[in-house]
Amino acid sequence: MTTSDILLTNLDENGILRLTLNDVARRNALSQAMLAALGAAFADAGADPLVRIVVLAANGPAFCAGHDLKEMTAGRRHADGGKVYFAHVMAMCAGVMQGIVNCPKPVIAEVTGVATAAGCQLVASCDLAIAADTAQFSTPGVHIGLFCSTPMVALSRNVADKHAMEMLLTGDMTSAVRAAEIGLVNRVVVPEALQEATMEMARKIASKSSMTLATGKRAYYAQREMTLPDAYDYASGVMVDNMLAQDAKEGIGAFIEKRPPQWQDA
Amino acid sequence: MTTSDILLTNLDENGILRLTLNDVARRNALSQAMLAALGAAFADAGADPLVRIVVLAANGPAFCAGHDLKEMTAGRRHADGGKVYFAHVMAMCAGVMQGIVNCPKPVIAEVTGVATAAGCQLVASCDLAIAADTAQFSTPGVHIGLFCSTPMVALSRNVADKHAMEMLLTGDMTSAVRAAEIGLVNRVVVPEALQEATMEMARKIASKSSMTLATGKRAYYAQREMTLPDAYDYASGVMVDNMLAQDAKEGIGAFIEKRPPQWQDA
Amino acid sequence: MTTSDILLTNLDENGILRLTLNDVARRNALSQAMLAALGAAFADAGADPLVRIVVLAANGPAFCAGHDLKEMTAGRRHADGGKVYFAHVMAMCAGVMQGIVNCPKPVIAEVTGVATAAGCQLVASCDLAIAADTAQFSTPGVHIGLFCSTPMVALSRNVADKHAMEMLLTGDMTSAVRAAEIGLVNRVVVPEALQEATMEMARKIASKSSMTLATGKRAYYAQREMTLPDAYDYASGVMVDNMLAQDAKEGIGAFIEKRPPQWQDA
Repeated sequence: MTTSDILLTNLDENGILRLTLNDVARRNALSQAMLAALGAAFADAGADPLVRIVVLAANGPAFCAGHDLKEMTAGRRHADGGKVYFAHVMAMCAGVMQGIVNCPKPVIAEVTGVATAAGCQLVASCDLAIAADTAQFSTPGVHIGLFCSTPMVALSRNVADKHAMEMLLTGDMTSAVRAAEIGLVNRVVVPEALQEATMEMARKIASKSSMTLATGKRAYYAQREMTLPDAYDYASGVMVDNMLAQDAKEGIGAFIEKRPPQWQDA
Repeated sequence: MTTSDILLTNLDENGILRLTLNDVARRNALSQAMLAALGAAFADAGADPLVRIVVLAANGPAFCAGHDLKEMTAGRRHADGGKVYFAHVMAMCAGVMQGIVNCPKPVIAEVTGVATAAGCQLVASCDLAIAADTAQFSTPGVHIGLFCSTPMVALSRNVADKHAMEMLLTGDMTSAVRAAEIGLVNRVVVPEALQEATMEMARKIASKSSMTLATGKRAYYAQREMTLPDAYDYASGVMVDNMLAQDAKEGIGAFIEKRPPQWQDA
Repeated sequence: MTTSDILLTNLDENGILRLTLNDVARRNALSQAMLAALGAAFADAGADPLVRIVVLAANGPAFCAGHDLKEMTAGRRHADGGKVYFAHVMAMCAGVMQGIVNCPKPVIAEVTGVATAAGCQLVASCDLAIAADTAQFSTPGVHIGLFCSTPMVALSRNVADKHAMEMLLTGDMTSAVRAAEIGLVNRVVVPEALQEATMEMARKIASKSSMTLATGKRAYYAQREMTLPDAYDYASGVMVDNMLAQDAKEGIGAFIEKRPPQWQDA
C-alpha cells in the first residue's frame, strides 16, 4: 500500500481499509497530488486481497472542497490558456471517480463536514455513505461561473432530477438530513456516533465473501445501464457463474446445515 | 385458468384475479414447480378477457423466500456441476419476473410477511405494492456467498442506487415503513387493513378500460428505456392510437356529457 | 416578446420572465392556441439575452387541466377520424415539453392549483417546481379511456416507478406534500408564501452567469441518458470549455480575491 501525507491509509484486522483525506489546510481539495494518491489507493485496494472494504473519511472540518481552484487557475499560464492542462485534470478526476465505482471492493463514505463540488461527487460515487448531522453537501460551481458538470454525473445517478437540479442551479447547501431524504447518503447519525456507525456497517460487509461482493458490485453497475431483457440475460449468467463458485457452495451448504460459512479468501 | 395446490387462484366478479402463493412449508420458495405455476398464471391472466387486474398475495408468515436452495443444491449432482440446470432455473425465474412486467393487466403485490431474495424481486417486479407493517424485505444472498444479482435488476429499477446497494451489500432486513420511504412499496397499512386496502385499489383500477390499462402499462415500460426524444415520439404515437380507440371516444364523450362511461370489454 | 391574452408575460429588472397561463375559463387547458403561445414564449425566452430565468405560473384555481378535450373531440370530424389532427396536436405538445427541457434558461413551475394530465407533465418538464399546499397533481387519463402516455414520459423521469404507476393506473390526485416526498416538486409552502418563495429562488439563480446556467442545463439532460463512461467523457469536455470561458475566469478570480463576480452578460 502506497503512503502519502495527504491521504492516510490504515488497514485493520477485519480487512477494512480506512482512507483519510488529510490535506486539512486545503480543505482536502482534489489537487493533482490528491487525485493521484486517491487513484493509486483505490487501484491498490482493488488488487490487495487483504482489503475487503474501503472507508473513505476525512480529517478537518471539510470532507472535501472539490478541485483546487488555485492550482487550476495556475494552469491558465500555459500557452493554450490551460486547455490541455484542464483536460488532464478532468480526466484524472473522472478516472478517480470511476475507479471507485469499478473498484471490486465496496466503498463507504464517512462524512463529517462539508462536501462540495467534486467533493460531493466523491460521496455520490461511493457505494454507500453515512453522514454526521454536521455534514453538508453542495454543487456550488454556479457561484463561480463554472457549472458542476462532472459532479452532476454522479449526483444525478443518486438523486431525482428536481433534487439534483436544485443543488446544481442554486448552489445552495443541502443538510445531511435532507441528503438522506433524497438518497445522496444512506443515513445520518450524531457526530460522535459516525465512525462507529460506519465501521459497524464496514465490519458487517467485510465478513462476507470478497468474491461474492466483487461479483455483485460489478454486476450492479453493469446491469444498471442495460434494458430490462438485457439486464436479466446478463444477471442470470452472473448468477450461474456465482452458483458454481466455491464460496456459494460453501455458503449455501452452511446455511442448510445451520453453521457459519468459511470463505475461501477469509 | 390452470389450478395448482401451491398457487391458489380466485377470480372475483370485478375481474380481480387473486393469486396466492401457498407453499407455506417451503416459505413460498420459487421452486421450479412454483415458477412454472406463476409463469402459467400470468400468461393465462394476460390472455383471459375476464381478468382485469392481478393481486399477488401469499399464505403463511413469509411472502416468498426466493429460490428453493435445497432444490438448487440438488442440481449440483449433474455431471456439469449444475451449470445447465442453474441456467435453466435462472431463465425460468427471469421469464416469470418479465412476465409480470409484460402482462397487459396491472399487478399489485399484497405483502404481509418476509419477502427475500427473488421474493423481494417479485414485489419489485409488480406494478404496485401494498405492505402490512409486518412485512420485511431483503436481498440476503451475500450471507450465503450468492449475491442477489437477478433480484437487483428489479430492485435497482425501484429504488435509488445507495438504497439498493445497502440492501444488497449488507443483506439486512428493510422494514415496510422504510420500503415505502425508498419506493419499493407504495404504502404501508396495519395487517388487518391490508387485504381491503389492496382490494380497494384493485377495484378502482379494475373499473377502468382494460384496453387503456394494457396500452398504458406496455407504453410505460417501453418508453422508460428510451431517450427523451424517442420516448416522446413513441408515446405520441401511442396517444394517437389510443384517441382513435372506441374506449377513448366513449370515455371522453362520457366525461364531456358528465355520465359514467361504458367500456367495450366491461 | 410575443404577447397573448391566454399567456401573460412579464419580464422584471432581474431578468426573471414570468409566464402566466391565463385561460381561466378553460382551466388553462393546452388548447392549440395555448400550445402555440407556450412554444413561442419558450423559444423567445431562450433567444432573449435579457431573460435569465423563466417562472411558469397560472391564474385561476387550476394550474393546467391538460389537453382541451372539447377541441380534441372536435378533431374527430375529419375524414380520417382525427388521426392526422391528433398526431399534429401531440407533436405540438411534445415540442412544447421538450422546448422547456431544451430552453437554455432554467424554468421553475409555480403551482397553486390542480395540475392534471399534460398539466402535470408541464410541471414535471420544468427544471424546478414549488407548490402551494393547495396544489394537487394527477394523471387521470385512465378515467376517460385515454392513458396519460405522454405525461408519463416526463413523470417517470421525475419519480420512482411505483409512484408513477400509482398515479397513472389509479388516476388519483396526489397532494402537494406527497408530490414533494416523491420528487415531483422541490418544496411546498403555504399559498400566501408561494410567489415570494418562487421569486426568491428565481432571483438567486438569475444572479448567476447565463452562459454557465445554459452550459450546465444542457449538459445535465444530455449526460443523464449516457452510460457512466460516456457521461464522464462528455461532461469532462464541458468542464474544460467552461473553464476557458470568460465567466469562469472572472468567477474563480473573484472567489479567490473574495469579491463579487461581474458576469459578461449581466
